[in-house]
Amino acid sequence: MLPKETRKPRGRQASTKPATVKKGKLKFIPLGGLGEIGKNIFALEYDRAILVVDCGLMFPDDEMLGIDFVIPDISYLEENRERIAGIILTHGHEDHIGGLPFALGKISAPLYGTKLTLGMVGNKMAEWAPGLTPDYREIQAGDEVELGPFRVRFIAVCHSIPDGVGLAIETPVGTVVHTGDFKLDPTPIDGRLTDYAAFSEEGRKGVLLLLSDSTNVERPGFTESERSLSGTLDKIFRQYRTKRIIIASFASNLHRVQQVVDTAARFNRKVAFVGRSMLKNVELARSLGYLHVDDSVVVDVEQIPSVQPGSLVVMTTGSQGEPFSGLVLMSRGEHRVISLGEKDVVAIFATPVPGNEKLVSGTVDRLFACGCDVVYEKEQGIHVSGHAARDELKLILNMTRPKFFVPVHGEYRHLVRHARLAGETGVAPKNAFVMRNGDVMVLDADRAVVKDRVQAGGIMVDGLALGELQGSILKERRELSEEGIVLVSVVMSEEGELMCDPSFDSRGFLHLDDAATLRGELATSVEKLVKSLGRRGAADPELLKSKIRGRVRDSLRRFSPGKPAIVPIVTVVESRRGGRS
Amino acid sequence: MLPKETRKPRGRQASTKPATVKKGKLKFIPLGGLGEIGKNIFALEYDRAILVVDCGLMFPDDEMLGIDFVIPDISYLEENRERIAGIILTHGHEDHIGGLPFALGKISAPLYGTKLTLGMVGNKMAEWAPGLTPDYREIQAGDEVELGPFRVRFIAVCHSIPDGVGLAIETPVGTVVHTGDFKLDPTPIDGRLTDYAAFSEEGRKGVLLLLSDSTNVERPGFTESERSLSGTLDKIFRQYRTKRIIIASFASNLHRVQQVVDTAARFNRKVAFVGRSMLKNVELARSLGYLHVDDSVVVDVEQIPSVQPGSLVVMTTGSQGEPFSGLVLMSRGEHRVISLGEKDVVAIFATPVPGNEKLVSGTVDRLFACGCDVVYEKEQGIHVSGHAARDELKLILNMTRPKFFVPVHGEYRHLVRHARLAGETGVAPKNAFVMRNGDVMVLDADRAVVKDRVQAGGIMVDGLALGELQGSILKERRELSEEGIVLVSVVMSEEGELMCDPSFDSRGFLHLDDAATLRGELATSVEKLVKSLGRRGAADPELLKSKIRGRVRDSLRRFSPGKPAIVPIVTVVESRRGGRS
Repeated sequence: MLPKETRKPRGRQASTKPATVKKGKLKFIPLGGLGEIGKNIFALEYDRAILVVDCGLMFPDDEMLGIDFVIPDISYLEENRERIAGIILTHGHEDHIGGLPFALGKISAPLYGTKLTLGMVGNKMAEWAPGLTPDYREIQAGDEVELGPFRVRFIAVCHSIPDGVGLAIETPVGTVVHTGDFKLDPTPIDGRLTDYAAFSEEGRKGVLLLLSDSTNVERPGFTESERSLSGTLDKIFRQYRTKRIIIASFASNLHRVQQVVDTAARFNRKVAFVGRSMLKNVELARSLGYLHVDDSVVVDVEQIPSVQPGSLVVMTTGSQGEPFSGLVLMSRGEHRVISLGEKDVVAIFATPVPGNEKLVSGTVDRLFACGCDVVYEKEQGIHVSGHAARDELKLILNMTRPKFFVPVHGEYRHLVRHARLAGETGVAPKNAFVMRNGDVMVLDADRAVVKDRVQAGGIMVDGLALGELQGSILKERRELSEEGIVLVSVVMSEEGELMCDPSFDSRGFLHLDDAATLRGELATSVEKLVKSLGRRGAADPELLKSKIRGRVRDSLRRFSPGKPAIVPIVTVVESRRGGRS
Repeated sequence: MLPKETRKPRGRQASTKPATVKKGKLKFIPLGGLGEIGKNIFALEYDRAILVVDCGLMFPDDEMLGIDFVIPDISYLEENRERIAGIILTHGHEDHIGGLPFALGKISAPLYGTKLTLGMVGNKMAEWAPGLTPDYREIQAGDEVELGPFRVRFIAVCHSIPDGVGLAIETPVGTVVHTGDFKLDPTPIDGRLTDYAAFSEEGRKGVLLLLSDSTNVERPGFTESERSLSGTLDKIFRQYRTKRIIIASFASNLHRVQQVVDTAARFNRKVAFVGRSMLKNVELARSLGYLHVDDSVVVDVEQIPSVQPGSLVVMTTGSQGEPFSGLVLMSRGEHRVISLGEKDVVAIFATPVPGNEKLVSGTVDRLFACGCDVVYEKEQGIHVSGHAARDELKLILNMTRPKFFVPVHGEYRHLVRHARLAGETGVAPKNAFVMRNGDVMVLDADRAVVKDRVQAGGIMVDGLALGELQGSILKERRELSEEGIVLVSVVMSEEGELMCDPSFDSRGFLHLDDAATLRGELATSVEKLVKSLGRRGAADPELLKSKIRGRVRDSLRRFSPGKPAIVPIVTVVESRRGGRS
């Protein structure tokens, strides 16, 4: 799809350093993904050209009540939208592409990514922004693309989704290398190794700035190969020959799906795929050639009950205990087709992402209560990470030998520890920067300074139609959720006289119908208040409301330590409307 | 404190099996702690006598909005309160004694526990139920107490709080052994070993039923000794000679506090204790002789800033990232005395309890951002569990060789796996029971059957004064927290005519002031509705409210996918009140 003139095979490019090097400065601007795991996006800027890398979303934490997800604030890119030369995507995970359907209404530029990555973007767009048709430019690892002053080389990297790439971005002041999300799996399922040679070659030519994945900097050693799970799979298939095997995993980990499919074939089992995202990803990956499944072994969901338990593997979503996922519905006895029992063994091939621990253990509890056997996180060999551990991170630092270093893709402690790790490998401590979203780093060939800020942050999305949610609404939800709400309605004449008894209602707080004494006391105190204010109350309802709040709060205090939101509604009936028709 | 006549040294008792053995049945009734970690309590019943063991509370999960804690439903005990012969306490942790201040208003019986356990109960009572004065009966490991048909022998066990006991309860049909919370630490800090001989002796005499701690059944091998942390402490003290050392740990883990105090002494550092529960526990433990700290090394909180960083250790709460704990306040820069910076190193001597992972990692992030060094969970040797792992559980099963087995103190998956483990050690699979709170097991010397149920469950406590919270209120809070609330106020005459424009307000939902179109549409549709109903609406406000809810929901649907609670307030002004004074 990529026009030929901007796409060149690796190694043939001429030197790009123009005579303007000394004058120009490069800016590196992370807009998301620093100090957090999620919504990764950063910009490189040289002269008037801006290159954007990734545009992800983040899943909400427990504090974000009712929020579906969080997208990056890209105001800075919007303001400079005409300067954006391209958007480069490293791989197809939500935290790298999930923000695109929202961003592409505000900015627009060609999207560069591998076939699978663009396929997954296509699915996202169809779901969330069907009206938009992005300008897709397919690339593959080894390709080189020129975008204004930037020359982008794509470098193969292994990760927990196929077809990921790292980047070497040549700029007039030097080369920026970005690892993308990666690990150095020495025996990848698809045989596609992280391209050590390409990273080393950049190191040899000289790397001005390295950006590297910090997710697993806390873990010593090397991350295990995805292939190491095949032994566990084998063991489970051998041990439970007569049982139906249910395997839960991440829907985007197509390598893992492939391993399950291959093991099933060896044990003469058919495979059924369950769960919306599993079906969607499997379909996409099969059509694009990333997943090899013979039609003859696939069983349709509806047909599952008719297959002998010992002849079937069900591959499902729900490895994180997600409330409406396949596995969770099964564990609750609410799946429309699959009902679990003693004939089943469930194997959860994933460890809980931080924050999901309770969801996962609750699911395991329910699965045991169904009577099935469960192989889960506390067992060995059930999950390997998709991210490089400490020794791999050191290797990349060794290969690229950057002058400047910015750890990316990590919470604050990860960034600090990654910066220190870089120090151990020889990066001068003053040249390793712990940055925050919105910081602007200005570089030339000799110097890097963080000296400016642009707007950055998270925008909470709560249902698409309403768009973006204000922080104040979230705060209200938090308060309501902790303490509930008490409503007070007062109807009065312009003369300040009550036209009926004040009425009260509550939600998420003591039911006032069950608390006659409290209700009576509230009524009396509000009546007294209205009377004492008289005409002033009717003339200034905001004053009256604030006084009602105070009075009600005082009364409540004697009954409950809770502090519900108190919402007075004051209606002043105009005299002439007494007989409106 | 225990009257002499009911307290005998071990080994002198006569056989207690009366002639009524064949007729009598023993009941084992768990009322809390099964299928959950928390609110442990169970009852043993023989003839008319009931023995209660422990009475704990549980901390709320994320779903329990605004809830402070959960106490067990002890309706069954309340109904039979005059039959309760005694309440036996195994140790002083919240999940074993925290429910007492609430229960002792409803049931009353002598409380048996070791000196430290009763001391901690005393602190709880003073805080939560100062009006009640329990009948404390101090015992120590090795003692024996006769309570109606029950003869209770107290067995020393190691745990993460000193002075814990397991129980051997001799009944007319056989002996029930309860491990309590335990581990088989071979080198305990206080030298008080788990009493293998006592457990083995019960096994030799014959154990009818074993109840055993299931918390760590997922962990292979042996739990490390508490003493193994001393190496880590030493390393930290050597590595950070010039820095102030802040150590966070569980306030009730007095063994760990003792190790910190001892290490501090060896390195000539003074110690300051910070955090309400730390101060309280340290004071209690020192006064009772469980913690040995020389007055001369203790620094008062206020004096902390005046001590050289290299000469001080601060021992604080907050190892679980608890919002208002000492460490968290420091990490937020909100502690009134201690301000952290490059002169400090913080060591968190605890791993997160499941569910607290994000609180802890957020705290670590903030600590790094303060500029201090942090030694935390991903490092080695920072925490050991207080509960026995799989091989220890097998040993206890081997020593006691029970006829029947009920795993206790665990979530459902723990109970299932512990029951299976018992099978591996020779308990007949049909004799290992996975029970639920409220199940009643009926035993005689030959048979055990789970065949009845009593009321059991959790009672959510949301502030003391209001007492117990209805589930419906919690559900409302959950809905409010997800979607918010929209209020509609209508004031009308008895003739069904609107006396002013309908008014709207919202919380935790789109601010209606910012959405003029929506507000206008809502007003129009409610006005139309009131008009169309006329006098019927005024005569039947409930009908009108339900119709308003439907109408408003329809209008909102076009603006937002959210589904806020809609609360209409209808006020009908009586004609004669037009001029109330």
